[in-house]
Amino acid sequence: MSSSKRLDDLIAALQIMPGIGPVSAARIAYALLDYKRPEGLKLSEILKSALNEIALCPECRNYTDQEGQRCAICEDFHRRDRGVLCVVETPQDVDAIENSGIFFGTYYVLHGHLSPLDGVGPSELGLDILASRLSQGKVHELILALSQSVEGDATAQYIAAIARKHGVKVTTVATGVPVGGDIRSTDGSTLALSIENRREFR
Amino acid sequence: MSSSKRLDDLIAALQIMPGIGPVSAARIAYALLDYKRPEGLKLSEILKSALNEIALCPECRNYTDQEGQRCAICEDFHRRDRGVLCVVETPQDVDAIENSGIFFGTYYVLHGHLSPLDGVGPSELGLDILASRLSQGKVHELILALSQSVEGDATAQYIAAIARKHGVKVTTVATGVPVGGDIRSTDGSTLALSIENRREFR
Repeated sequence: MSSSKRLDDLIAALQIMPGIGPVSAARIAYALLDYKRPEGLKLSEILKSALNEIALCPECRNYTDQEGQRCAICEDFHRRDRGVLCVVETPQDVDAIENSGIFFGTYYVLHGHLSPLDGVGPSELGLDILASRLSQGKVHELILALSQSVEGDATAQYIAAIARKHGVKVTTVATGVPVGGDIRSTDGSTLALSIENRREFR
Repeated sequence: MSSSKRLDDLIAALQIMPGIGPVSAARIAYALLDYKRPEGLKLSEILKSALNEIALCPECRNYTDQEGQRCAICEDFHRRDRGVLCVVETPQDVDAIENSGIFFGTYYVLHGHLSPLDGVGPSELGLDILASRLSQGKVHELILALSQSVEGDATAQYIAAIARKHGVKVTTVATGVPVGGDIRSTDGSTLALSIENRREFR
């Protein structure tokens, strides 16, 4: 409790952000009030416009600046190979792959995985849009980059079946010991797969 | 870099908050977009109104809901002893003392301490308002609860001189080993003061 109800409301509202508890929220609120009011007001405007405007790209379902507009990746006709489509669960997965700097195909973002008990079926993941995109015959390889979990695997199987129906080759990212990781601190399941999928040493 | 400029702007803007770096900012932005848009829009409104409306209480310079309005503590005529005034550096100091549940006087918030090199003089700390409050003759004790630093001490001396000129008794909070703290992990200066100010054991 502070001496101002508005301040208490602000401290409470800041806690909707993941990782921000009461102590951090109070520290943030006081910093904005004490010496960052203009920056805080700008943040409020940017937040409002982002949450009102940011929509899903009609082609890949990644985030895009506004409704009906293609995202920057789908807009990039010069450098992107539209024949290779990488399917991921979240927009953060796209960012992670983009940051690796190795992939120049396009993406399809599911925003989750199949989870019938939570009411997440094929249409919630936009698999109809994906199927219609594959039916156009321009995609020749679909790379599955989903999370390694029961739900992720089930979703991967489901999408692979759609892709094969349209004659599209399906691949998946390799599982194994991370670069810089050591054997003794790699979990058993990862290690088992990385031995099973071993390749010739050159 | 994400696929949306608005999203990049949001991630950048979130980093004005203390303790929020690029990784936390991205996590927050995606959480708000993915499943907390209504809460995020409400946060944007609360932030805007807080930063536009919250002002300084004309009596104690603590934060108050709007310009010209007294804060909740100064408004509380029934339970607050207006004869005892506690001077602190920040509104957070007020919250900390209020949370201790032991103090029922009123406050005066400096919003800093004297620091001539940074252009912070008596008028920036509102010491004229404090002096006029003391001149009314209603305050009989002024408690100094400033930070234990060279600047804090200089500010305390300056304020004590004003108070004495108006015939007001000046006290300061005790310095010593924190409750629950042990001797071996208390710093030397604190320990020295706590031995110097030792009291009879009962």
